[in-house]
Amino acid sequence: MEIPRSVVFEGGVLRILDQRLLPGKEVYLECTSVTQVIEAIRELSVRGAPAIGIAAAYAMILGLESSSDDQSGLRDEVLSRASQLKAARPTAVNLCWAVDRMLVNAESFFDLQRQKAGLISGQMGQHLASVLMDAADSIYEEDREACQAIGENAWHLVERYPQVLTHCNAGSLAVSEFGTALAPIYLANQRGVPVHVYVDETRPLLQGSRLTAFELGRQGVDCTLISDNMAAHVMALGRVDLVIVGADRVAANGDAANKIGTLNLAILCRHFNIPFYVACPCSTIDLNTETGSDIEIEERAAEEVRQVLGQPSAPDDVAVFNPAFDVTPADLITGLITEKGIIDRPSYEQLRIFELSGA
Amino acid sequence: MEIPRSVVFEGGVLRILDQRLLPGKEVYLECTSVTQVIEAIRELSVRGAPAIGIAAAYAMILGLESSSDDQSGLRDEVLSRASQLKAARPTAVNLCWAVDRMLVNAESFFDLQRQKAGLISGQMGQHLASVLMDAADSIYEEDREACQAIGENAWHLVERYPQVLTHCNAGSLAVSEFGTALAPIYLANQRGVPVHVYVDETRPLLQGSRLTAFELGRQGVDCTLISDNMAAHVMALGRVDLVIVGADRVAANGDAANKIGTLNLAILCRHFNIPFYVACPCSTIDLNTETGSDIEIEERAAEEVRQVLGQPSAPDDVAVFNPAFDVTPADLITGLITEKGIIDRPSYEQLRIFELSGA
Repeated sequence: MEIPRSVVFEGGVLRILDQRLLPGKEVYLECTSVTQVIEAIRELSVRGAPAIGIAAAYAMILGLESSSDDQSGLRDEVLSRASQLKAARPTAVNLCWAVDRMLVNAESFFDLQRQKAGLISGQMGQHLASVLMDAADSIYEEDREACQAIGENAWHLVERYPQVLTHCNAGSLAVSEFGTALAPIYLANQRGVPVHVYVDETRPLLQGSRLTAFELGRQGVDCTLISDNMAAHVMALGRVDLVIVGADRVAANGDAANKIGTLNLAILCRHFNIPFYVACPCSTIDLNTETGSDIEIEERAAEEVRQVLGQPSAPDDVAVFNPAFDVTPADLITGLITEKGIIDRPSYEQLRIFELSGA
Repeated sequence: MEIPRSVVFEGGVLRILDQRLLPGKEVYLECTSVTQVIEAIRELSVRGAPAIGIAAAYAMILGLESSSDDQSGLRDEVLSRASQLKAARPTAVNLCWAVDRMLVNAESFFDLQRQKAGLISGQMGQHLASVLMDAADSIYEEDREACQAIGENAWHLVERYPQVLTHCNAGSLAVSEFGTALAPIYLANQRGVPVHVYVDETRPLLQGSRLTAFELGRQGVDCTLISDNMAAHVMALGRVDLVIVGADRVAANGDAANKIGTLNLAILCRHFNIPFYVACPCSTIDLNTETGSDIEIEERAAEEVRQVLGQPSAPDDVAVFNPAFDVTPADLITGLITEKGIIDRPSYEQLRIFELSGA
């Protein structure tokens, strides 16, 4: 059975799969305004660094065709949307990256308009929307191709180490299609590798149990669900020979921010001498962020930890610390799997060489 | 506010606090039969190695006064109860230890009866119940004293390292009173140490969020609840300088079985160079179990992981691995805190010396 797509744009409506309801219900939010998309990003109806970027790109277009025909009014609208969208969540760099790319396209459009005044008369919003639609479609399509390439670049790792463990959801639901961390697993499975995946449930929001277990099941990949705190035991039993996770932002020195609990796994891998890989498209690598300590870590509401699936699980007045991400230092990362190849032992030097080589 | 006692025997009824309902409700199960107590142990209404032992000890007495006056019938009844109780859960050694101690007392009673036939005529069940009541009360009282001594023996650790992290519940609710891992924290807090405790919520059954956060709140100890997978991040931030946990069984070589997730913490402590202590009464040390790999690890129902608080959190057909405990190798344990003192760097030799010294 197919995995539903996380983000679908059709007929001027941005349909966002409400991942909060998975695996029980497959319901799409029909977004026609940027406010609705911001809400969907904040409330995690759409999540996963690349998927957030894609949703934000399409949000830049919604209803734009009926916007002001005045160039300066239209530009204000576009800039305002961009800054609102970028503020929706702080950690994943793809959100800013995608919105900035849309802005570059919008500015080119406005520049052209200024240079050739009157080229387009009237329906300026409609013209801009059409330009931006191409840009958003490109972001989607490039992400799709990046995910396929990540799969191709790393499926041999899964062939060599077929007992995999993953955390959170870096699958189809986190991106356009296929996934980042899950792409090599899907490909290896299709190619007959007897892969087995331990899935961390990933508290507090259970993206592992709700989303990854759901995806893997749909694709017929053999998997076993565990609580996050069982990973060390499973490793001690010799049942894991590879860990692959996604990333929300990779700093210039190779430090990687990803879902809370990732650092935990990286340390366990070091202890048990298990290779630990981070898979992400190059759009997740942020050379403007020097090290992991420069990455802003989003803290979310206490209720996410005091409750589970909306039910109280702790005294209602207990203090809570709820960071949504943690940072894994580069020296715990065996390799960074990207669409352009695998960067072994990522470091500032390695990432510079990789960038310069245009690999 | 007082912490409710986990097990109270009064008026011939064993009142077991139903810890499954905490922190929302404080309800006692009124047990008058051994079957009810076995059910309460299996279903985790009472949990924590020492508390299970205490509950089982009192269960040996329930309704015994109205049992057969025939010595051999009475002895069969006692032996049958003992074997049923010991089979209720496999990992915690205190259960067997407490039941065996009750059996020794019962056998002494029967021996005396045989030697001095007719000494007690009639009401033999009542006499045996009275003998066993003293034995069960002793187990309770000794556990209480052991917990107090554990607190005294280790509160200076909390004074030196006041930023503590703990896992599961090794507090008052897991024992007679005071707790094992929490006893030094309570004492340090009473003595004015500015202690702060990070509480792992402890999936799948949330003993940390439901029980430890509840207890610490009642005793006015400053604490912060986190998901299990946040421990590494909190340590990386420098906010933990001591980890104390309980134990369900310590093998002769110092390997310790405790709630799933404990091994995870021990490895993190090694990575971050944080002292890692296991607190337990000597009744938890099982010199008949050679190493950790000889400890039977209970596996519990898949639903505990596929659901949270009874609500589905994963596809209902996903495979699950649900070990209730893991084993921390002795070489990751900084010290074993017992009522008789702290055993530094526990090992086969250290435990033998400790035993022989009667320390």
